[in-house]
Amino acid sequence: MTNLKLVGLEKKERTVISVGNVRFGEGFVIIAGPCSVESEEQMVETALAVKKAGADMLRGGAFKPRTSPYAFQGLGLEGLKILAKAREATGLPFATEVLDTRDVSWVAEFADMIQIGARNMQNFSLLKEVGKLQKPVLLKRGMYSTLEEWMNCAEYIMNEGNPNVVLCERGIRSFETYTRNTLDISAVPAAKELSHLPVITDPTHGTGKVSLIEPMSLASAAAGSDGIIIEVHRNPAEALSDKDQALTPAQFSVLVRKVRALAKFMEGMK
Amino acid sequence: MTNLKLVGLEKKERTVISVGNVRFGEGFVIIAGPCSVESEEQMVETALAVKKAGADMLRGGAFKPRTSPYAFQGLGLEGLKILAKAREATGLPFATEVLDTRDVSWVAEFADMIQIGARNMQNFSLLKEVGKLQKPVLLKRGMYSTLEEWMNCAEYIMNEGNPNVVLCERGIRSFETYTRNTLDISAVPAAKELSHLPVITDPTHGTGKVSLIEPMSLASAAAGSDGIIIEVHRNPAEALSDKDQALTPAQFSVLVRKVRALAKFMEGMK
Amino acid sequence: MTNLKLVGLEKKERTVISVGNVRFGEGFVIIAGPCSVESEEQMVETALAVKKAGADMLRGGAFKPRTSPYAFQGLGLEGLKILAKAREATGLPFATEVLDTRDVSWVAEFADMIQIGARNMQNFSLLKEVGKLQKPVLLKRGMYSTLEEWMNCAEYIMNEGNPNVVLCERGIRSFETYTRNTLDISAVPAAKELSHLPVITDPTHGTGKVSLIEPMSLASAAAGSDGIIIEVHRNPAEALSDKDQALTPAQFSVLVRKVRALAKFMEGMK
Amino acid sequence: MTNLKLVGLEKKERTVISVGNVRFGEGFVIIAGPCSVESEEQMVETALAVKKAGADMLRGGAFKPRTSPYAFQGLGLEGLKILAKAREATGLPFATEVLDTRDVSWVAEFADMIQIGARNMQNFSLLKEVGKLQKPVLLKRGMYSTLEEWMNCAEYIMNEGNPNVVLCERGIRSFETYTRNTLDISAVPAAKELSHLPVITDPTHGTGKVSLIEPMSLASAAAGSDGIIIEVHRNPAEALSDKDQALTPAQFSVLVRKVRALAKFMEGMK
Repeated sequence: MTNLKLVGLEKKERTVISVGNVRFGEGFVIIAGPCSVESEEQMVETALAVKKAGADMLRGGAFKPRTSPYAFQGLGLEGLKILAKAREATGLPFATEVLDTRDVSWVAEFADMIQIGARNMQNFSLLKEVGKLQKPVLLKRGMYSTLEEWMNCAEYIMNEGNPNVVLCERGIRSFETYTRNTLDISAVPAAKELSHLPVITDPTHGTGKVSLIEPMSLASAAAGSDGIIIEVHRNPAEALSDKDQALTPAQFSVLVRKVRALAKFMEGMK
Repeated sequence: MTNLKLVGLEKKERTVISVGNVRFGEGFVIIAGPCSVESEEQMVETALAVKKAGADMLRGGAFKPRTSPYAFQGLGLEGLKILAKAREATGLPFATEVLDTRDVSWVAEFADMIQIGARNMQNFSLLKEVGKLQKPVLLKRGMYSTLEEWMNCAEYIMNEGNPNVVLCERGIRSFETYTRNTLDISAVPAAKELSHLPVITDPTHGTGKVSLIEPMSLASAAAGSDGIIIEVHRNPAEALSDKDQALTPAQFSVLVRKVRALAKFMEGMK
Repeated sequence: MTNLKLVGLEKKERTVISVGNVRFGEGFVIIAGPCSVESEEQMVETALAVKKAGADMLRGGAFKPRTSPYAFQGLGLEGLKILAKAREATGLPFATEVLDTRDVSWVAEFADMIQIGARNMQNFSLLKEVGKLQKPVLLKRGMYSTLEEWMNCAEYIMNEGNPNVVLCERGIRSFETYTRNTLDISAVPAAKELSHLPVITDPTHGTGKVSLIEPMSLASAAAGSDGIIIEVHRNPAEALSDKDQALTPAQFSVLVRKVRALAKFMEGMK
Repeated sequence: MTNLKLVGLEKKERTVISVGNVRFGEGFVIIAGPCSVESEEQMVETALAVKKAGADMLRGGAFKPRTSPYAFQGLGLEGLKILAKAREATGLPFATEVLDTRDVSWVAEFADMIQIGARNMQNFSLLKEVGKLQKPVLLKRGMYSTLEEWMNCAEYIMNEGNPNVVLCERGIRSFETYTRNTLDISAVPAAKELSHLPVITDPTHGTGKVSLIEPMSLASAAAGSDGIIIEVHRNPAEALSDKDQALTPAQFSVLVRKVRALAKFMEGMK
C-alpha cells in the first residue's frame, strides 16, 4: 500500500482523537442514538435514555442518504438544532453526517464530529472539504471499498490539514442476504496495522438485524476495536428509517453493560 | 421495484435524449476520448483522431476522482476550456464528469453532457443538483450498486425536473481480479425492462484490459445497448491516468468499424 | 497465471472438440433441453422440439445438484436411459452432469459428453476421474471461481490424459439479486486468451430470467463464444426444477434463428 | 429458510457433539495442526507442540484440494497412518478432510472426525456418503455459500442418518484482497439462530495472515463460537502448503492462553 504518508505507521504511536471529553483510541467509546432525528421529543428522549444506559456520545441523522428520493430525507437544519438540544440535555457530544460540500462549514458549527457515510467515502470533494477543518471526522468504509481505498480516503482528509480522523467499519456488501451487510471484523486489526488512527465498528448497519448486534459488538471489542456506534430508538416500530435494526433503550442498556465488561477484560489482557 | 414513477415503463415509449446532434436511444452512439484532459495538444489531437475514426461525441476528464490524493487530479477549469476547444475543432459535443455540487452550474456552461461517475452514483446532493438543470446527464452505475439502487438514482435526478438521463453500465466489483471490473452486460436489457431510458456501456472501465474492449463492445451492441464510451489516447503509454486500458486511435478505428456494422445488423434483425 | 502447461496457448492453434457430428470450436453450437429429465414423454417431446428449432445437441439432468435434500434429485439411471432414447429419436448427442466419482465410468457409457457442474468445479477427485476417459467434458465455471482457478481445473482433467475439455461460463455470484447470477461475458474472450479450448456460455443459469436469455445469447455470440446451452421445457410451468428460467420450444425457436444469424454475421466479420 | 427439519431449532436445545473426550458445544474447542501432513516427524512434532500449548484436538490434511494439479496433493493413506501415530503420541483425536465418496468409509476407520472442505460443501454425493456414518463431520461453509445453502448441506448429512455435524465458518470470498478471505464472524451467531448445531471458525483460512489470526480468534470467542481450528507448523517457512498463514508453536501457545481466558470470561457473562 503506497503513499500513506500521513495515515501510515511511520508516525509510530497510535493517535488519540478527542471529541469533547470523549477520547477515541483510549478506552472503548460507545456512540448511540437514532438513525434519523425525527422530532425534538424523540431525539431528546432517546439521548437521555442512551446516556443513562452508558453511552459516551450521541448520533443522529439530519441529512439522510436514502435509496429512494421519496423516502424521508431528514430534517436538515432543524435536525441539527434538535441535536444541539440533545447535547445540552445530556452533556454528550454528537456526530452527524454531512452529504454536501456546501453544508460542511455550517454543519461543523453545530456538530462535534462530522460523519462521512459509506456512500460518500469516495466523494473526494467532500473529503477535501472536511479536511480543511480541524473538526473530528468519522470516516465510514464504503460498502464496496478495499482497505487500500479506505486508507487513501483518510489520507485525502489529512492531506488537507485535518489530522482528526476516526475510521469506522460498517459492513461490506457480499452475496449473503441473511444479513444486510457483512461486518468485516478483520478490518479492525487490519486498519490498525495499516494506520495509526482509531477504528470503531457499526454493528447496526453491519448486520441489519437486532439479534446480531450484541454478538458483533462483543466481537468488535475482542478484535481490538476502539468503539462502536449503535442505533437506538425510543420506539423502533415507529422509526422513520431503519426500524428493523434499532435497539430499544433496554436492549442497549444490556449491550453496554456486556461490552464495557468485555472491553475492560481485554484491556487487562494486553 | 417500487416508486419508479418517472424512470419506470408506465411512460410506455422509450425516451430519446439529444446532446447536440447526437441522439441517445436512436442508433448507436460512440463516445470517445482520453481519460483525463492533459493538455490542449493532447486533447485536440485525440479528438480529431476519434472524430476521423467515427466517434459521435467526445469524453475527457477535467476533474478526476482518484484513489490517492497524490495522483493527478485533473486540470479543472483549464481542462474544460480545452474540451471546449476540442469541440470547436471537431464539431462534436462532449461529456465530462462533475464531482462537487458547487461546480455543477458552471461546469454545465461548458459541457454538453454532465457525467455522474460510479463513485458518486449515490451522492444524492450531486444528483439533486444536476436534476435542477435540463442538461443531459450520463449516470454511471456504481461498482457496488444493484439495479434497484441505480434506477432510484435516475429517479432522484428526474424528480428534480431533469428528464434527460442516459444510463451507463461500467462494470461491477466482483472477486475476479483478471479484469478490473466485471462488465455486467445483462444490466443493459435489465435496465431497459425497468426503465424507458437509453442505456450505454463502458467497456474500458468495465474490463480494464485493451484486449477485451472490442469483444465487450460487440457484446454490448448485441445485447441492445444504445452506445458505448471508450477511452482513447493518442499515445496510451504517456497517459497520466488509465494508461493500461486506453486504445490507440488506430485500435479505436477498427473497433468503430466493427461495432457500427454489428449495430446495423442488429437494427435489421429487430 | 502459472503452470497452464496443457491448457495454455503454447499449443498455438485453437482446439476443436467433436461430440458426434457436433464440433465445438467450429461454428456456433447450440445445446438445449430440460433442466431435469422428468419422464420419457417429457424428454423425447422436448428433444424433438429443440431439434426442430435447430439445436445441435441435447442436455438433460439425470443427477441433480439441489440446494435442499428434499428437492427432486433426478431419475438417475432411468434418466440416462431416457436420454439415450431422446438421442435415438433425434439423432442428436447429449450432455449430462455427473456428481460422483463412482458414477463416472458407467455414466460415460450412456452420455456423449460429461458435464461437471459449477458446484463441482473444484471437486478435484471428480476432475481426475473424468480425466481418465477420452469422453468430452463440459467444464462449467464455479459461481465463485476466478479465471485462474477455472483454467487450473481444465488442467487437472487434461493432466490425467483427457484433452477434450469445453469450457462453459454460467454466471458468477455477485451482490445483484435482480438476476440469479451475473453472466460474465468477458470470461469468454478472457478464457480464449488464456487457453486454446472452446468456450460456450449458459445464459439460462447466468440470468435466471426468461426475458434476459435472448439478449445474453446474442451478447455471447458477439463476444466470440463457441456456443450456448439453453434450458427448454415443453411446458415450463410444469417443470420439476428451474421453471422460471426455461424457454418454451417456440421462444427457443426464435432465439435459434436470431443467434444463428448473428453468429454467421460475426463469422463474416472476422 | 424452509425445510430445515433436522438442522432447525424445533429441537429446542443445543446439540453437543463428542469426538473422543472433546465436546463441541460445551466449552471452547481448539483444533490445531499443520495444513498438510508432510512426514511423521513433522506431524508428530507439531502434534506434541500443540498439545503442550493446550490444543484439544489435531488437524492435518492427507488429501489436499489444491488449485493446481502440480501442487502437493497430500500423502494419502500414508498421511492417515501418520495422523494415527500423532494421535497415539498425544492422546488427542484428529480431524481430516475427505475429497472422494470412495474414500469415505476407509478414511473414517482412521479419523475421529471427517472434514468436508469449503470447495466440497455442495458436493452432495460426498455429503450423503458421510451422512451414512455416525462419525462426526466438520462441515465448512463454502467460500461462496449463503447461510441458507450451508444449513441445507448440514440437512443433507443429517437426512442420511448422521446427526453429528459441527459447522465451521472459514471465510467467504469478497472483493477485498488484503485478506485471503473475509471471515464472516456474524455467521456464528446467525448459524446458531438458524440451527441447534455447534459452530466453530477457521481464522487461519479466514484471514490468510498470521497477524490477524489472534484478533479473529478472540472475536470468534466473543461472538459465541464453540471453538476454532488453527494451522500450526513446527517451521512455517518450510511448509509445503499455506506457509504464510501457519503459526509457530510459540505463537499458538500465546493464542491459546488468550482465547481460553476470553472464553472463560464469556462463559461467566452468560
